[in-house]
Amino acid sequence: MTLRKKLYIIIFGTDTPAGKAFDVALLVAILISVLAVMLESVPSLNNRFGYVFKYAEWIFTVVFSLEYLTRIYVTDHRKKYIFSFYGLIDLLSLLPTYLSFIFTGTQYLLIIRALRLLRVFRILKLGRFVGEGEQLGRALKASRHKITVFMGTVVMLVILLGTVMYLVEGRDNGFTSIPLSIYWAIVTLTTVGYGDIAPQTILGQSIASFVMILGYAIIAVPTGIVTVELQKDREYQKNKACKSCNSKGHDTEALYCKFCGEKLPE
Amino acid sequence: MTLRKKLYIIIFGTDTPAGKAFDVALLVAILISVLAVMLESVPSLNNRFGYVFKYAEWIFTVVFSLEYLTRIYVTDHRKKYIFSFYGLIDLLSLLPTYLSFIFTGTQYLLIIRALRLLRVFRILKLGRFVGEGEQLGRALKASRHKITVFMGTVVMLVILLGTVMYLVEGRDNGFTSIPLSIYWAIVTLTTVGYGDIAPQTILGQSIASFVMILGYAIIAVPTGIVTVELQKDREYQKNKACKSCNSKGHDTEALYCKFCGEKLPE
Amino acid sequence: MTLRKKLYIIIFGTDTPAGKAFDVALLVAILISVLAVMLESVPSLNNRFGYVFKYAEWIFTVVFSLEYLTRIYVTDHRKKYIFSFYGLIDLLSLLPTYLSFIFTGTQYLLIIRALRLLRVFRILKLGRFVGEGEQLGRALKASRHKITVFMGTVVMLVILLGTVMYLVEGRDNGFTSIPLSIYWAIVTLTTVGYGDIAPQTILGQSIASFVMILGYAIIAVPTGIVTVELQKDREYQKNKACKSCNSKGHDTEALYCKFCGEKLPE
Amino acid sequence: MTLRKKLYIIIFGTDTPAGKAFDVALLVAILISVLAVMLESVPSLNNRFGYVFKYAEWIFTVVFSLEYLTRIYVTDHRKKYIFSFYGLIDLLSLLPTYLSFIFTGTQYLLIIRALRLLRVFRILKLGRFVGEGEQLGRALKASRHKITVFMGTVVMLVILLGTVMYLVEGRDNGFTSIPLSIYWAIVTLTTVGYGDIAPQTILGQSIASFVMILGYAIIAVPTGIVTVELQKDREYQKNKACKSCNSKGHDTEALYCKFCGEKLPE
Repeated sequence: MTLRKKLYIIIFGTDTPAGKAFDVALLVAILISVLAVMLESVPSLNNRFGYVFKYAEWIFTVVFSLEYLTRIYVTDHRKKYIFSFYGLIDLLSLLPTYLSFIFTGTQYLLIIRALRLLRVFRILKLGRFVGEGEQLGRALKASRHKITVFMGTVVMLVILLGTVMYLVEGRDNGFTSIPLSIYWAIVTLTTVGYGDIAPQTILGQSIASFVMILGYAIIAVPTGIVTVELQKDREYQKNKACKSCNSKGHDTEALYCKFCGEKLPE
Repeated sequence: MTLRKKLYIIIFGTDTPAGKAFDVALLVAILISVLAVMLESVPSLNNRFGYVFKYAEWIFTVVFSLEYLTRIYVTDHRKKYIFSFYGLIDLLSLLPTYLSFIFTGTQYLLIIRALRLLRVFRILKLGRFVGEGEQLGRALKASRHKITVFMGTVVMLVILLGTVMYLVEGRDNGFTSIPLSIYWAIVTLTTVGYGDIAPQTILGQSIASFVMILGYAIIAVPTGIVTVELQKDREYQKNKACKSCNSKGHDTEALYCKFCGEKLPE
Repeated sequence: MTLRKKLYIIIFGTDTPAGKAFDVALLVAILISVLAVMLESVPSLNNRFGYVFKYAEWIFTVVFSLEYLTRIYVTDHRKKYIFSFYGLIDLLSLLPTYLSFIFTGTQYLLIIRALRLLRVFRILKLGRFVGEGEQLGRALKASRHKITVFMGTVVMLVILLGTVMYLVEGRDNGFTSIPLSIYWAIVTLTTVGYGDIAPQTILGQSIASFVMILGYAIIAVPTGIVTVELQKDREYQKNKACKSCNSKGHDTEALYCKFCGEKLPE
Repeated sequence: MTLRKKLYIIIFGTDTPAGKAFDVALLVAILISVLAVMLESVPSLNNRFGYVFKYAEWIFTVVFSLEYLTRIYVTDHRKKYIFSFYGLIDLLSLLPTYLSFIFTGTQYLLIIRALRLLRVFRILKLGRFVGEGEQLGRALKASRHKITVFMGTVVMLVILLGTVMYLVEGRDNGFTSIPLSIYWAIVTLTTVGYGDIAPQTILGQSIASFVMILGYAIIAVPTGIVTVELQKDREYQKNKACKSCNSKGHDTEALYCKFCGEKLPE
């Protein structure tokens, strides 16, 4: 086996001990580098440890650059990798550091490095969480039409309610424009309730009360939708039959038929 | 086919390519005109682009007026259309602009133009969202008695709690009247929590804590109601039998029997 | 039939036209008198319409007194009525007005008149809402042990979290005592979030973040409990058999067997 | 039976009248002592009743010390008890008082006494709440993988959203660092909404609106998960067969087979 092949298995594979060790090391490196980006933004920490963050950044950038180049080197489908979602994220999380070296005034780009966090998802694509995640994803996907209808209705509602409140409360009570009033309606309907804008008139408070009770009640709708879909998914899983022996009643988590050992259909 | 008949199919129909194109164009026009109404209310934008909003408004008003008159012209049941829900909305979203032209001091009426948004629902009455929407609607309709009982209890509760808090906290701590205290109780029970009025005394904070935990717990009730209704509806759909071949087990979304191709009962 | 018997049927009964009319009239009178109590507490309204509220109060008190005395007169079990829950509420909602007439400085007692609202429940004990309310009540009753366990855990949690936050944030950041810190923990865990007390230190904000995500997640528990109980109740209803013909599969709402017309067991 | 054996049954047992009385007395003592710790932290109360709290504290400490020593004396597995969870809690809730006697400046340690509250759980391990608690625990345990996936996604989301808001709003609008912006994202997504930090720019308010609606919608996910697990657990319970007579359909709460009286498998 060539070195290139070996490296491929370590970097892209997850089944060998070396591959697992690489994944864990990369995970740690990503998390530390993202943490550094965050802490760097805290003024008091940056004043005292600014040079530490700068050194750490360069070390991480060099390490991730080497990893990026190695990935390109070992893969057989270079173009496909480079323009894949993860390939672009890999590149995007490196570029800002180099750009800040060449051009001045690009400090804001450094934030893009936080996108490195997305790389974590690639590594997490292992273990038993994938199955669970897929199950949740299936339920959400199956309920997307219902949730779209619900969300559309909510959007309509906040626009109309926001407009009404702009009329009722007016500019003097903090509802300075319709978009801001819609923002208030969203803050209220979702029960967030910042309190930066709050109705002052009796009529406004009455409408606000109505919006709150409405928001309190209609949260039941997405919950009901997702619950029923999860239930449906579970029943489907339970009723799926083994292709080999036609047996039913397998557990939701089962991957193999418990009677004949054949792989179950997904 | 007369021109009138053709126009009818384009304007009221949704199945022909021309009808679909008309719907999409109208949808875009409505959304842009509503967006203009909103942005016009932002002082900074109105100062700079006020004349753009004014021109846009007149163009939209003329277009929607022509559409309204055409609808009246092509339909066979004119009175029915004019006094139908959508017919009145169509008229209401035109009138303010003309009124502001004739009378001065009717600027506030201009907000009514936001009602144009409701016209969107007519256009959206197509595609697969209708079925999903109907399913949600059925579940909500079936649970309306339970939700009324729940809501009635909540209203009773906030009135009593608000009255108690008015006594406990009093006018010096911001609970200046019973209606305002009820408003506070709603803000707290629905977990919105603006913070514009907050209890100051130990006893008041204890009661507030009780209200919050209560609100946190009883949100489970509407959620449970809607979930069970959605589940019920789903089972009903799954168990409905084809009238032609008596087969069962059709998918919830199925419109035609998968065994004999007959239309399924709704 | 004696007058006393006739009055009994009108006042306590709900099935005759006169009984229904009496109930509706009483309902309206109660709601108006409660509304008057509330509006009287609004300073601006009381200044202008104070004498209206006072006259209205005396009229309602006289009417309710007559009603109370008639109830005592017509019922066969006087003692039982007087000391029943509704009998006491009836009396309690009358006393404050008379007391304020005899003694001065008893204005605060007037708030007790808001208890009249509870009388509404007696009248509402009719129609189809009772069945629905009972179903909800059954589900809540069946889940009371689970909800107690959940609530107990939540109370423990907020006490411990409040104590920790008192240590972490201290008196300078608004967490002036452990009870107040517990109040904060409740405000945060239930996602109410007034913002009158908010953590200032990094550690405090980290703990607060944890509390919020916890509160966001564990709201799922009471919801799940109630949903499952409602589902259970529904299945039980569906599976109940007719005592007369042993048939099953009756609708949840069904009161009579659809096969033999006998009354179904509750 | 020796005194030691008798004491063991009283202190560790829960079935004899003496054992029950001991548990209740201990429960009351713990609750009062914890209440004292809390009230002591209220400045106004401490100023007036400081000496009462101090005396009470010493009485409780002596009582709990005696109880602790007796527990060690009567148990057969001393080491196991001392290093068990409850053994350590028992010790930890005593130490601070003695330490504050020996060293000065250890007042802060006194807060640890609030841990006494955890001792309540030992006493509550009785009655019918255990079964309910176990059922909830089983459902939560079964859904831990799904909840982990959900929580991981939420954490990712708030980190990315916080970073974006730091860029959009910037330090002048209160988003002084990325960690603080993440804190804001958590406050908003969980619908707590303190309002201590709130977006000021149009773009920031738009993103905030998106975060709120997202948080409003995805709360459906943990709720759905827990509901389905509770439902699953219930069905499992209902379908479990008696080992002795193979009968099924036992109630969820049933401990013994209703046909042959044998103990059911758990």
